[in-house]
Amino acid sequence: MTVETTRTESPRSKRRMILDAAIDNFGKVGFEHTKWATIADDVGIGQTALYHYFESKVHCLLTIMSTELERSFERTQAVTAEIDDPAEKIRVAVLAAFDVTPREALQARILMSHQDLLVGQRSSVREEDERQRARGLVRDIEHEWAELIRDGMFAGAFERRDELVLSRLLLGMVNSVWRWYRPDGAHTLEEIAQLTAGACVRLAR
Amino acid sequence: MTVETTRTESPRSKRRMILDAAIDNFGKVGFEHTKWATIADDVGIGQTALYHYFESKVHCLLTIMSTELERSFERTQAVTAEIDDPAEKIRVAVLAAFDVTPREALQARILMSHQDLLVGQRSSVREEDERQRARGLVRDIEHEWAELIRDGMFAGAFERRDELVLSRLLLGMVNSVWRWYRPDGAHTLEEIAQLTAGACVRLAR
Repeated sequence: MTVETTRTESPRSKRRMILDAAIDNFGKVGFEHTKWATIADDVGIGQTALYHYFESKVHCLLTIMSTELERSFERTQAVTAEIDDPAEKIRVAVLAAFDVTPREALQARILMSHQDLLVGQRSSVREEDERQRARGLVRDIEHEWAELIRDGMFAGAFERRDELVLSRLLLGMVNSVWRWYRPDGAHTLEEIAQLTAGACVRLAR
Repeated sequence: MTVETTRTESPRSKRRMILDAAIDNFGKVGFEHTKWATIADDVGIGQTALYHYFESKVHCLLTIMSTELERSFERTQAVTAEIDDPAEKIRVAVLAAFDVTPREALQARILMSHQDLLVGQRSSVREEDERQRARGLVRDIEHEWAELIRDGMFAGAFERRDELVLSRLLLGMVNSVWRWYRPDGAHTLEEIAQLTAGACVRLAR
């Protein structure tokens, strides 16, 4: 397995290369079955250098999760900013959630599979910092979508209901797709995105 | 921790007692942190006797998962059998999914947390048998809900769309509640059930 990124020499991009190699390995053979040494080999660095960036496989996994959560939060902000119609905001945000590269799709699936990791406190400081960051982002995303729904309620487009519970239901539905979607499955991601976007708009109405 | 069941002496109920003790422990301290010996102690049997029923902690966990899936499948059948109106069938089925005992709620949460276990083949024959049983039940449940949705489409109550994808989206939404619902949270399970049932009916329409 090789890393499919353009390699540059800055420390920042080495960190990104490690994350990409980890996503590819965790996504394909699973977190449990991935050896730390394989990631070092894929990136072409020694294990000591690897530990400089991530102190453990779990630390790396938590970083993948918070990175994916941050990407998702920012993407939703970006695609909805210029839209006024509340239903269209929801539709566009859901379509954007599925408009991802194959590696981002893997990353979303890894996030879904390891959500439990966000529940229990970590004994390592760096792992715990990353876990707190991820938990904060989960809350930010719930409130981001709750706001999209609430705006629609105030505008009279959606019926008034508990917007935070609705936001969690909507996100639960959207994220659940990553559990069963496979690139070689019966439906393209585009088809699933359209069906899900429609379902989310009806849910909010 | 003690087992909260009525103890009888038949082999069948001992198996049930082990499952209940395992649910309580997995639900409260987590699968990883539960010691096999604790379950034996809770039930009041030796570890050798415990191995007679379940050859591993994973075998026990897979059995909890397939038992919960079977309960859920049968419950949906039972509550929808006598209802004609398609939207009412969906509403009643969703409400029933949340009309659970505290232990069933734990069991549903355990099922959500360990779904990944259903993906990869097990090397042990008994574990693999139980995994296949659980996977079969997941498919059965998806088709059960797809049928509820398709009936509504044929009756003209719901718009025609891909009923299997809609069923998966609906189940993804319903099941996601077990990730964040806590008995001491801001909303009662009854309030969440009503909001979710409404959302599922709108999703299907």
